[in-house]
Amino acid sequence: MEDVQKQQAAIAMPIDRVGVKGMRLPIIVRDRESGIQHTIAEVSLSVDLPAEFKGTHMSRFVEALEHWSGDLDYTSFRTLLDDVVVRLQAKSAHVRFVFPFFLRKLSPESGHSGLMDYTCRVDGWMKDGKLTFTLGADVPVMTVCPCSKAISEEGAHSQRAKVRIRTQFDGFLWLEDLIEIGEKAGSCQVYSLLKREDEKHVTEASFANPMFVEDVVREAANGLAEHPQVHWYRVEVESFESIHNHSAFAVIECPEE
Amino acid sequence: MEDVQKQQAAIAMPIDRVGVKGMRLPIIVRDRESGIQHTIAEVSLSVDLPAEFKGTHMSRFVEALEHWSGDLDYTSFRTLLDDVVVRLQAKSAHVRFVFPFFLRKLSPESGHSGLMDYTCRVDGWMKDGKLTFTLGADVPVMTVCPCSKAISEEGAHSQRAKVRIRTQFDGFLWLEDLIEIGEKAGSCQVYSLLKREDEKHVTEASFANPMFVEDVVREAANGLAEHPQVHWYRVEVESFESIHNHSAFAVIECPEE
Amino acid sequence: MEDVQKQQAAIAMPIDRVGVKGMRLPIIVRDRESGIQHTIAEVSLSVDLPAEFKGTHMSRFVEALEHWSGDLDYTSFRTLLDDVVVRLQAKSAHVRFVFPFFLRKLSPESGHSGLMDYTCRVDGWMKDGKLTFTLGADVPVMTVCPCSKAISEEGAHSQRAKVRIRTQFDGFLWLEDLIEIGEKAGSCQVYSLLKREDEKHVTEASFANPMFVEDVVREAANGLAEHPQVHWYRVEVESFESIHNHSAFAVIECPEE
Amino acid sequence: MEDVQKQQAAIAMPIDRVGVKGMRLPIIVRDRESGIQHTIAEVSLSVDLPAEFKGTHMSRFVEALEHWSGDLDYTSFRTLLDDVVVRLQAKSAHVRFVFPFFLRKLSPESGHSGLMDYTCRVDGWMKDGKLTFTLGADVPVMTVCPCSKAISEEGAHSQRAKVRIRTQFDGFLWLEDLIEIGEKAGSCQVYSLLKREDEKHVTEASFANPMFVEDVVREAANGLAEHPQVHWYRVEVESFESIHNHSAFAVIECPEE
Repeated sequence: MEDVQKQQAAIAMPIDRVGVKGMRLPIIVRDRESGIQHTIAEVSLSVDLPAEFKGTHMSRFVEALEHWSGDLDYTSFRTLLDDVVVRLQAKSAHVRFVFPFFLRKLSPESGHSGLMDYTCRVDGWMKDGKLTFTLGADVPVMTVCPCSKAISEEGAHSQRAKVRIRTQFDGFLWLEDLIEIGEKAGSCQVYSLLKREDEKHVTEASFANPMFVEDVVREAANGLAEHPQVHWYRVEVESFESIHNHSAFAVIECPEE
Repeated sequence: MEDVQKQQAAIAMPIDRVGVKGMRLPIIVRDRESGIQHTIAEVSLSVDLPAEFKGTHMSRFVEALEHWSGDLDYTSFRTLLDDVVVRLQAKSAHVRFVFPFFLRKLSPESGHSGLMDYTCRVDGWMKDGKLTFTLGADVPVMTVCPCSKAISEEGAHSQRAKVRIRTQFDGFLWLEDLIEIGEKAGSCQVYSLLKREDEKHVTEASFANPMFVEDVVREAANGLAEHPQVHWYRVEVESFESIHNHSAFAVIECPEE
Repeated sequence: MEDVQKQQAAIAMPIDRVGVKGMRLPIIVRDRESGIQHTIAEVSLSVDLPAEFKGTHMSRFVEALEHWSGDLDYTSFRTLLDDVVVRLQAKSAHVRFVFPFFLRKLSPESGHSGLMDYTCRVDGWMKDGKLTFTLGADVPVMTVCPCSKAISEEGAHSQRAKVRIRTQFDGFLWLEDLIEIGEKAGSCQVYSLLKREDEKHVTEASFANPMFVEDVVREAANGLAEHPQVHWYRVEVESFESIHNHSAFAVIECPEE
Repeated sequence: MEDVQKQQAAIAMPIDRVGVKGMRLPIIVRDRESGIQHTIAEVSLSVDLPAEFKGTHMSRFVEALEHWSGDLDYTSFRTLLDDVVVRLQAKSAHVRFVFPFFLRKLSPESGHSGLMDYTCRVDGWMKDGKLTFTLGADVPVMTVCPCSKAISEEGAHSQRAKVRIRTQFDGFLWLEDLIEIGEKAGSCQVYSLLKREDEKHVTEASFANPMFVEDVVREAANGLAEHPQVHWYRVEVESFESIHNHSAFAVIECPEE
């Protein structure tokens, strides 16, 4: 049968990235506590395409995923990227996995155990054999407004905020490290299961530690800057303001090396 | 050209609703303050289809919208539904508009003016010439947790919540009536523009009025039950809990007459 | 500590449903081929609340999930609902799980194996000890337009469509049964991995079998009506029209018994 | 009252961007045909924050919007950015508007008039008094697969695709120019209203012009490269494949000057 993709392109322009996205896939990821956990990733894969070829062979991306172990660690991720490069005869490739990651947390007073979910992501760009690898976690926290607290007779508005961390680093890094840095950056961390004494604890702890989004983004950026392995990061904090119908947000991105 | 739609259906089954959805359309809606406002609606239109016909004529829904004034009030809405019934030779029809609606609000202390947005909706079901009409508004409010306040030395967690109101009623009803009922139901209403003295006001007002989602849904349901024109309602309150990564919610639906 | 929830309600109105939503949870579901599969569910749980109580105890929903096995079958689902009723001292309860479900499919000509994802859902309503159980699957298919094919010199527009099935039934029912009924209802089923000969097959098969959304919804409804165990169903088909920027859709709901 | 924002930051780190997002606002935009049109924008505004200040004054963003005309053209957009810089005492600022934009199109054979919607966006980055301005449009088109057509006895799979264009340019540029480039890049443009003869036209035109996402992205990139005013662009094409449950996509970004 005709290989239309291999025909000459009508317009001889190189394409930066061509591939598939919106695929879902069961994967296994590492966690520090229990070793592994099963989760579901949304996946995108792409490669460059030279000016002369009309099209890429999209089914080969899916074949690469099918031949891949589904067991997501640094080595296997690199294997997948290498395989994509070979199958597609490409010079560069990009792979992204976005997935919920779960941690068992104990509530702060009663010690009840509850599962917390964090949306995490892994990005890999392969170019001329060199891999750039980014790990990310979206960490929900609680913020108490310092201004509202300072000026009000009683109370202060609080809300859920999301700390979105992206990093590049040396060696191996646990997702738990990023989540811990995110959770420390807010007025208080959040939990799935809180009994009354825990709710009292969280309320008091957060009110003792009021934070603007500006404070949270600096705290998280500082935590990442001080991490011995992290050599690039970007943090965005979005606060779903309880006194408004819109969000406040702040971004710090450390300069590219 | 062949009219494939008019052919006999392979399976002679009546279809409850067939139509189009996901269309966007500029419309004009009434507001009490300035008379009219321009907004953008997402629209769906559908009719029943008897067992004998293979298909409906989808382009006629778009023609009905094209011939419609775009000026959304009760009379013109009914005209649109009548027109859909005639064009599609249907016995029943449904039309839905979902759109942002804006109100200018003064902040509670400094009196600064700011525009607030509310997602509103109009639903009309025409059956055998009889129109059932539903008006709805999604109203953001702030809630302060009564339990957290009662048990903590200082503070209480607060968050944004959404009061989703749907109603059937006699005569004409302003969207502003529904929004007012929703805003009164929370610990405090929210604003787009708050200066420092306003933020103090909102914080103190909300802390003086702690409300669970259960309290909010009852307050809103009670407001609707007491409204002289409303004869059916459904209220859902969803609270984006600041101490959790999930929502709390509550629903009251008044029994169908 | 004070139990604010147990206090008397300011407005003595019963609440239809109060609970939590937006929680994510790793679960295990049954599949016919491999026995079990790991997936991630979005969960909501709720109960009724009598007029006299101010609030429900939200943490008990999370405790019920924590004490539950995470292994989703009919018996364990019923156990979870029973447990929610007991923990919350409720008369009625509702539990919903929405999750991606995966099937390994062979491509139609070359026999290449690829994983397909389907969004599925389980709903259970417990009332006075009686459980109403609903199983659902959203099944992507391809549709080729019969009108476009009949009137054009060459070709016909095609697009992805989604068949959203909800059912009540006797005994045990595999999700695979619903998916099969959905996939048979379109012009052709879709695949994650298609080599050239498979793409030829899918194209020709779909063009030999043109279907309006009206045809698809009837075909699926008919398949459900003929299933010996199914005693209630609702099907919605949405077609993401390739010639428009909006969708066509059709709904058949079998009357409640 | 205390100005907490002006206090010294606990961590003396400059913040790249801090501001508000998720606000909705009625605006007026220019169109070539009728002069102006009313639409609704989702808005975000942000500025940099020096290392020494604890927080920015979020209400000033909303005040800037309140004092702005709501009439979106190049001059007024620049005025808004200047105003944000002044009010927030910032060195850099970013403003984004995302809004549906409508064009009246005649169907290709019968000449029926129908309104088409396109999601458009305007981005402005002000830095040290210099404005970088980006205009974008998301343009839906139809694609017919060249491979499927070449290898099949009959037919070829088609689907809706989205051409997402972002540009920087000299002088004034109509959104209509971007939309036209996007619509020319697909196998055929799409319409809201098509009668039977129009559907025949669109089907035949698209089948005479089969295009991969790779072809579409090059065609659009070429159209932008040839536009005398455009000096930077990025195009992404996403095709909602009718034979799969996932998308194919391609990206060309012209190098920064």
